[in-house]
Amino acid sequence: MRGMQRIGVIGAGAWGTALAMAAGRAGREVVLWAREPEVVEGVNASHENRPFLPGVALDPAIRATGDLEEAAAADALLLVTPAQHLRAACRALAPVLDGTVPVVICAKGIELDTGCLMTDAAQAELPDNPLAVLSGPTFAAEVAAGLPTAVTLACADAAVGRALVDALGGRSLRPYLSDDLVGAQVGGAVKNVLAIACGVVEGRRLGDNARAALITRGLAEIARLGLALGARAETLMGLSGLGDLTLTCSSLQSRNMSLGAALGQGRRLAEVLGERRSVAEGVYTARAVVELAVQRGVDMPICQAVDAILNHGADLDSVIEALLTRPFRAEGV
Amino acid sequence: MRGMQRIGVIGAGAWGTALAMAAGRAGREVVLWAREPEVVEGVNASHENRPFLPGVALDPAIRATGDLEEAAAADALLLVTPAQHLRAACRALAPVLDGTVPVVICAKGIELDTGCLMTDAAQAELPDNPLAVLSGPTFAAEVAAGLPTAVTLACADAAVGRALVDALGGRSLRPYLSDDLVGAQVGGAVKNVLAIACGVVEGRRLGDNARAALITRGLAEIARLGLALGARAETLMGLSGLGDLTLTCSSLQSRNMSLGAALGQGRRLAEVLGERRSVAEGVYTARAVVELAVQRGVDMPICQAVDAILNHGADLDSVIEALLTRPFRAEGV
Repeated sequence: MRGMQRIGVIGAGAWGTALAMAAGRAGREVVLWAREPEVVEGVNASHENRPFLPGVALDPAIRATGDLEEAAAADALLLVTPAQHLRAACRALAPVLDGTVPVVICAKGIELDTGCLMTDAAQAELPDNPLAVLSGPTFAAEVAAGLPTAVTLACADAAVGRALVDALGGRSLRPYLSDDLVGAQVGGAVKNVLAIACGVVEGRRLGDNARAALITRGLAEIARLGLALGARAETLMGLSGLGDLTLTCSSLQSRNMSLGAALGQGRRLAEVLGERRSVAEGVYTARAVVELAVQRGVDMPICQAVDAILNHGADLDSVIEALLTRPFRAEGV
Repeated sequence: MRGMQRIGVIGAGAWGTALAMAAGRAGREVVLWAREPEVVEGVNASHENRPFLPGVALDPAIRATGDLEEAAAADALLLVTPAQHLRAACRALAPVLDGTVPVVICAKGIELDTGCLMTDAAQAELPDNPLAVLSGPTFAAEVAAGLPTAVTLACADAAVGRALVDALGGRSLRPYLSDDLVGAQVGGAVKNVLAIACGVVEGRRLGDNARAALITRGLAEIARLGLALGARAETLMGLSGLGDLTLTCSSLQSRNMSLGAALGQGRRLAEVLGERRSVAEGVYTARAVVELAVQRGVDMPICQAVDAILNHGADLDSVIEALLTRPFRAEGV
């Protein structure tokens, strides 16, 4: 597999912009596609993405464009759109993207209408392109700043995977190679639901012991769902599973955790959602995760509890009480 | 197996006292043995353990004693001494303890002189008693306050294990039963070493991504060592492994993490140790863990890095640099 020199990044939110920085730092030529003309203009003229990553001085070599065909003319493409827009982005890319170009999915979530993982949605629209998944514990601002960050990079084709690791990896961004594409997606899809639960524990002042137990039992839920979908356990226990979960559940900066904390403090969901510009992803994902779990016959009591609170008007205290008084059981996945 | 009504707790530090509270709350009659006469006096007279758990009002039904034989006259015994004193406590108990009484080890660590796990040390001194291990993410103050806390309770004899779960478990302390005694001890023994590493990351301002990666790769080290010692993976991914690790590595209240943070800020080890009353357990454990890893041929680069810094005068920046520039590898245990 020849070296990959030119990287296209589709989506210029905080995470897409940070990944463009990382690729540039690794020595690549980077073209960043943004939907918003003011982002294209700002990146090219003043080397800043003020709407999404304010205050970060971007590498002047990063070029932004609003032309999808221009960004698609690359040796590899990173897809960093919101999860619910990934399929549309793939559909728009299909006519302008060479079928041999590897596509790295950097969006996390489950497609709500279909219950699809991101790779299933992408494969349906870009059937020829080799797919990879990049996921892990990654606050975008830290990656943009060049702080050390380790991620899982999963690719079915080992040679393509190694070429991607070489193209994107450096001293600060360190990709660990895997071939488990399903496993690399489950943690990122479920973690936001569990972060809401951790927020409730925080808001209700139930303590750090309870939060650590919730993270542990929550990872067991991720593992059960992942195994049912065909993932390998080691991936779920790795950077994209445990790593991302522990990061998301340990910071009140996380939108999902702070939403849960507000609920835990006794505020009403409608009120909390009403005063926010952006909705916490876990609010959507909870329902999709629970539907997937029911379909596959997987027991996910914490996710079910979050869904019951968010989407079925369940009383917070009754739900907590029910979780705490489950019969004593054996430990295990 | 008949119900267990009377519980002896050997060791009246913060954790022993908190466990006495939990057993009392579960409806048991509790006798708490303390080495220090002033602790015995304080618990019996004013229902407070001022030296070790100040400000917590103890259940007046908890009786303290300095007489080991009196505490040993119980249906089950919890051993909550410091790890390095566990063998001596067992030796002192041997002449006064009925060989049928189950002994629950609640101390975490590795015996430095021998490299023994706590159960090996106990078994050598109390060869007849059924042994169990209680471990998990447990800040003592939260358990004492009755906040929800989940632990692994491992016992080779299933009937004894179920009786212990029934005797100790309640709405706030929730034991998950396991039969993997080795697995239940490895997390608690290694976590303090990893907490020092997380402290270094914090003190050096390397970011939350790096800390989450360290927790993840650190759990992989726990898992590799545990599997080499005969543990089961699910135990290591459970409350006593992942749960305890994530709690210990997320709080600067942890002595080990704050020691690491001081080192990360550029302070010298001798200086940091000199101003502390109590030494962080991880300082001792690092060497024992690395010796065990070498004996068993297990790769534990993070623990080795901590040992190199603490015990072999290694330069912090060189060690961090070496960890960051390890060759890109495949992910997995």
